[in-house]
Amino acid sequence: MERSPLLGILGGLGPMSTVYFYEMLTAHTEARCDQEHLNIVISSYAETPDRTDYILGRSSDNPLTAMIENAKKLENFGATVIAIPCNTAHYFYSSLKDEVSVPILNIIEETVRIAAGVGIGKIGILATEGTVQSESYQRVSADFGVACEVPTPEEQAMLMDIIYGDIKQGRRADMDKFNRVAGSLLDRGCEKLILGCTELSLIKKNEGLGYEYLDSLEALAYRTILACGKPPCGFPAYFGAR
Amino acid sequence: MERSPLLGILGGLGPMSTVYFYEMLTAHTEARCDQEHLNIVISSYAETPDRTDYILGRSSDNPLTAMIENAKKLENFGATVIAIPCNTAHYFYSSLKDEVSVPILNIIEETVRIAAGVGIGKIGILATEGTVQSESYQRVSADFGVACEVPTPEEQAMLMDIIYGDIKQGRRADMDKFNRVAGSLLDRGCEKLILGCTELSLIKKNEGLGYEYLDSLEALAYRTILACGKPPCGFPAYFGAR
Repeated sequence: MERSPLLGILGGLGPMSTVYFYEMLTAHTEARCDQEHLNIVISSYAETPDRTDYILGRSSDNPLTAMIENAKKLENFGATVIAIPCNTAHYFYSSLKDEVSVPILNIIEETVRIAAGVGIGKIGILATEGTVQSESYQRVSADFGVACEVPTPEEQAMLMDIIYGDIKQGRRADMDKFNRVAGSLLDRGCEKLILGCTELSLIKKNEGLGYEYLDSLEALAYRTILACGKPPCGFPAYFGAR
Repeated sequence: MERSPLLGILGGLGPMSTVYFYEMLTAHTEARCDQEHLNIVISSYAETPDRTDYILGRSSDNPLTAMIENAKKLENFGATVIAIPCNTAHYFYSSLKDEVSVPILNIIEETVRIAAGVGIGKIGILATEGTVQSESYQRVSADFGVACEVPTPEEQAMLMDIIYGDIKQGRRADMDKFNRVAGSLLDRGCEKLILGCTELSLIKKNEGLGYEYLDSLEALAYRTILACGKPPCGFPAYFGAR
């Protein structure tokens, strides 16, 4: 008998973002009973070393080791496709992909694909310093023919305060700071602001953000539900344009 | 090097309750950064056959087979302790425990232990028909010297409508019905009402319920965080009384 798809989530990067991704998958799968939901295995390995610290050379503790180990464990568990609800971790995407034989969805590609699909000309990137410095979004945007703005160093420092000083410590985000960074990117002509860090997705969840934001976690959830052969529901209508 | 504890969650029974359990563990662990959170592996195997249908003889599809398979997979993944955020599934607790070599926490024992620990004389059980008919709470309560009331058949039918007709389908619970059942148990002298179905825990999350409710999912989360050697925070003060 052919087995149903089993989604593997390489999570814990950080834990509350993985909680939200799992919630999003559950809320956005059309289901009338438990059994119509996705089968999932989640590795929430919180001890994975900090991604940004390693990328910026502040620590020699390479998170890739733990990521490979847990991706292989997901594969051994039976995962048929893997999703990683963390943008910064996609710095290691290519190295990780070579270590497992199941496909790994790419949150950055899925996000930019949606923006490009509805003709957005320029996006603004709200992400960790690790994601910005490693130019993950800049390169993928170029591939899709979409222009890309990133915050100034001062704005980026404010974002890092929000991500590490507020959200990862379970506190409310400083929305004054957040709106200053976002406003600056809009002033520079960005048509959509990418929530390109899954901790920032929690701001959209908890504070509510407008139509000008495109949440990378939502983009990944949309593609993940489709990849598992289930009907997605309740996503922004423009996600469906391909 | 000794490895950190790895919590295995046998979940998906139903999926949204497992989401909430994972959220609860994350929100109630005192942590200043990702790395201070619990390491967790979650099997959210939604296709596990319905527990109540099997217990009541409405279906011959035995959920125990899928539960054993997934518990073993959690053990192979490296889980050092297992939690099951579903009361009804504890009908199978003894059979499951014999199949794996890691300890499995018992949501029903942890819940009644807290009630007994603060001298509650009589509890009311809000649970699935499977849990009530299998007398899981009745037996554990007797062990702890706590009296126990269950809903009348008509009230139980209303609870099942809420669990299966509302919550498992992603709808808001019918609070009129819920309050009628709860009020009847309070009238019969229950000092605490046990949310003895993790779908009903979602009512406490989404609607807010008072001090007269003791949530089995919170009891399990409290004990789970302790079992993983982390500091629990933000639980009702009386959880600490032992």
